[in-house]
Amino acid sequence: MNIGVLGTGMVGNSIAGKLIDMGHAVKMGSRSADNEKAKEWVNKSGANASQGTFGDAASFGEIIFLCLHGAGTLEALDMAGIENFNDKIVIDITNPLDFSKGMPPTLFVSNTDSLGEQVQQKLPGARVVKTLNIVNSELMVNPALIPGDPDMLLCGDDGEAKKQVTTLLNDFGWKQVIDLGGIKSARNMESFVLLWVNVYQTLGNPYFALKFLTK
Amino acid sequence: MNIGVLGTGMVGNSIAGKLIDMGHAVKMGSRSADNEKAKEWVNKSGANASQGTFGDAASFGEIIFLCLHGAGTLEALDMAGIENFNDKIVIDITNPLDFSKGMPPTLFVSNTDSLGEQVQQKLPGARVVKTLNIVNSELMVNPALIPGDPDMLLCGDDGEAKKQVTTLLNDFGWKQVIDLGGIKSARNMESFVLLWVNVYQTLGNPYFALKFLTK
Repeated sequence: MNIGVLGTGMVGNSIAGKLIDMGHAVKMGSRSADNEKAKEWVNKSGANASQGTFGDAASFGEIIFLCLHGAGTLEALDMAGIENFNDKIVIDITNPLDFSKGMPPTLFVSNTDSLGEQVQQKLPGARVVKTLNIVNSELMVNPALIPGDPDMLLCGDDGEAKKQVTTLLNDFGWKQVIDLGGIKSARNMESFVLLWVNVYQTLGNPYFALKFLTK
Repeated sequence: MNIGVLGTGMVGNSIAGKLIDMGHAVKMGSRSADNEKAKEWVNKSGANASQGTFGDAASFGEIIFLCLHGAGTLEALDMAGIENFNDKIVIDITNPLDFSKGMPPTLFVSNTDSLGEQVQQKLPGARVVKTLNIVNSELMVNPALIPGDPDMLLCGDDGEAKKQVTTLLNDFGWKQVIDLGGIKSARNMESFVLLWVNVYQTLGNPYFALKFLTK
């Protein structure tokens, strides 16, 4: 499948690398077509890897991953061209973290709204699924690093899109996927990340993942 | 030990009942000294149980549990008399949930502040520890209902108070207690409750608890 990955940071590299390993054709997108990090990724990733602008990656992908800094997400979607997302599944991994006042971060949208909802609103023709934002980038594509079958959460307004994304998550190694409902639940997945940061500071490493234990 | 429990709802009943079972003397406090639910609890709970106003319960307790509705918490502290909390450990189980717009709730304080911080600010002479607010009232005092040793979280500015509360949580059955740091971390414990509500709606029952799986 052709997949677009918007973002060249740790999350983008982790997701794009895994997708290449799975045999997909992946185009990494950034602000310009000559981003050094994107070119470096292409050079090491073989014939199925390519790179270009946000718009190139969005129009290339049948599925598009948003691996962007929270604060730049909506602007990046504008740069990519809203129409390039129509009828596609958009997997939103962003977090609305505001580090402007130092650690710990706060959220620049929260409680009565979420970045996931804003992305869906910005891309009315796309089917947005929020997921993967609740773990470190390495664990996103290798949850087996953490014994005990941790939970992955997802939400979105389109059931069929969530089904496809769940299959993809299963392929990433996530055995337990909890569907929290509509995209509105992105509020809860995003605010959880503040607790994640807190636990990260407490444990001193990012190698942990959430599980809801039941009776 | 003499312990005050402010609140006569499910959380208050659960906590007070467990403390009686453990052999403590417990005074349940409410707005008036003739609260029917408090009197009912005293009648079934034996000689170590008593009830009275918020002020009666606060002045009675060496440790004071806040088992109040979020929205009424600060007012209840005023009614109890701020001086009655001085030099005491105050265990804050409240959540700033706003159900005024229906389900799911939002938070009336969040992100850059928390009810835990507001309680500590209101009671400068007390040592506030936030904990137990992240599970259903039954599980608070019986975590063994959930196999797998779920985590309990706590935070607060006073290390010695947190040590004493951890011992109490161990006695309640919590084997894993994660200290998230100062009372500011109440933000993360309170916003987690929105995810809790979401998972409760998804699973259809409140018998689940959080665990952070590690490597």
